[in-house]
Parts: sequence; structure tokens; C-alpha cells
Amino acid sequence: MDISDVNALSYEEFVEIFGNVVEKCPIISAAIWTQRPFSSLAEMEAQISEFIDSLPQSGQEGILRCHPDLAGRDLRSGTLTRDSQEEQSEAGMNTLDPLEVSRLGRLNSAYKERFGFPFVICARMNNKAAIMRELVERLGNERTAESKRAIEEVKKICHLRLGNIVLSELPNKL
Amino acid sequence: MDISDVNALSYEEFVEIFGNVVEKCPIISAAIWTQRPFSSLAEMEAQISEFIDSLPQSGQEGILRCHPDLAGRDLRSGTLTRDSQEEQSEAGMNTLDPLEVSRLGRLNSAYKERFGFPFVICARMNNKAAIMRELVERLGNERTAESKRAIEEVKKICHLRLGNIVLSELPNKL
Repeated sequence: MDISDVNALSYEEFVEIFGNVVEKCPIISAAIWTQRPFSSLAEMEAQISEFIDSLPQSGQEGILRCHPDLAGRDLRSGTLTRDSQEEQSEAGMNTLDPLEVSRLGRLNSAYKERFGFPFVICARMNNKAAIMRELVERLGNERTAESKRAIEEVKKICHLRLGNIVLSELPNKL
Repeated sequence: MDISDVNALSYEEFVEIFGNVVEKCPIISAAIWTQRPFSSLAEMEAQISEFIDSLPQSGQEGILRCHPDLAGRDLRSGTLTRDSQEEQSEAGMNTLDPLEVSRLGRLNSAYKERFGFPFVICARMNNKAAIMRELVERLGNERTAESKRAIEEVKKICHLRLGNIVLSELPNKL
């Protein structure tokens, strides 16, 4: 597919297809639909990025709070979004041993206690060891810096989800 | 319950409980959690309103695009959120006769064609006749004015959903 197919979508189709490129924040794709036509996928992604950057810090933290824990309750109860399910599986989050689950659970809790939002990382770009290391490291950050850092990860996740949809899934859905 | 119960909620509980006070926009309640403690429910509502107002017009239209049609596909297929289901039922949207369904369908399409977002109205504050009348009337508006008008309705819906949760549901959920 190419960007002209994307530009031809109604807002309903657009939100149905791209609504979760930022986890549980369909408002973001719904908002940037206004900016069509996009000259390229990269421009569409830039519009998403710009929209996120335009939000106050509380709004950016709101985005983070719409994300699930890594290897958390939603993974155990099967209530992750399909995107998160696939990403956490790829990073090995569904095959942790009991010690790893317990360590990650403690680190997630400490992180949430400190920052008031969950630890967000682009799981597809990291393996289990890298995720653990990063979590420990980022726990030492100051809140504003960490909020910015986590939003960078949201954008990486978005980049991969967008590519995944445009390169492989859209032709089947349309 | 009182506002101190609300202020004591973790962000996860808060988003689970209040995540849909603006339809499919959990980012909004997730964002205003940052502003705790709230002195009253009214202040919490004011924070939501302020957050919505701070969004660019594309973001406000994004909120509108997260709303379902009245008596539309989601009602027929049973995929409305529970909140919307109850509200549309109360306004009689699930007991329209075939002529009414077809008239509303045509008006909804004309409205979406003209504005690029769905017709949003606080169904709980209107009956069938009032909804039809309002839809015809608002179809004549200019886009920026109509976008603002529709956001006022989003805030009315939010007001009633908030009251509904705080006055009746929260004690059972906690």
C-alpha cells in the first residue's frame, strides 16, 4: 500500500486501523486525521510526534499511564491489547522464570511508586536482559527527565506499529 | 464516597474507574490524575474541562472522532462501550422504527461528510425528537463553531458519567 491509500481512509477506518499506534490513545490518530493528506508515512509519524510534544507534561504522563506493566497483571490475565501482547512475547516477557517475574514485579512497583506512571520501553528493540538493566538505570532519573525518556520509547513503539500496519496488515484489512 | 476516596486512588485504579468519562479517551483521566489532590468533584471535572480546552482544534476533533454514531453500527453490532449503550438506550436509540433509523442514518452521514467527525450530543439530556431536531439544526453550523458546540456536549456527557460513578458505582468497585 502507499500513502495515497492512507489518505483515502475515512476517519472511522483510519481510527480503526491506526487507533492503537499509541497504546489506548485513539484520540491521537483521530486528531492527526485532520492533517491529511500526508505526503509520506514519515510525515504522518511526524504529525503524531508533534501532537504528543504539544501536550502538557500531564498529558504526556497520561499517555504513559495508558500503558500496561511489562509482565504485569494484564499479561497474566490475558487483557493486553493485541499489539502489547505480541511485543511483550517477542521480548520474552511471557516466559520469565518465577524469580525473574518477582524481580520485575518489585522493580515495576518501585518505578510506579517513584514516578506515578509505568515503566515504558520499546520491547521489540530490547531483550529481557536489556529491559531489566534499563529499568534499574532509569529508576535513578529525575521525574521530568524520565517522563521525556519514556515518551521517546512511546514514539519508538509507535514507529514499529505504524510500519507493521502499513507494510503488512493494511492490504488485508481494506 | 467523597473526594478523599478519589484522591487516594492509584493511577491504575483511577484510570480503570474514570477512564471512559470522556468516551474512549483514558488519556484524559490519566492526565488529570497528576493534579491530585482535588478539593471536590467539581474541581476534578474542571481539570478535565481545562485539559480538553488546552488541546488544539485537531485534538478536540480527535475526541469527537472517538465517539460512536447515534443508533449506528456499534449499536447494531453490540460494540458500544457500556456507557454509550446505556445512554443511547435511555434516549430511545435502540427502539427506533425503520423509517427513523434510515432518516437518522442519512443525517449522520451528511453530518460526518460535512464536518469530518460524528454528531455528538448528550443523549441523557435529550429525547428522540430533540436529538433529530438538534442534528438538523447543527448541520447548518460552520465547522469551528460546530466543533466547539460538540465539545460542550462531550463535557455534559462527562459530567453525568462522573456523577454516576461517584454517587453510585464507586463504593461497589472499591
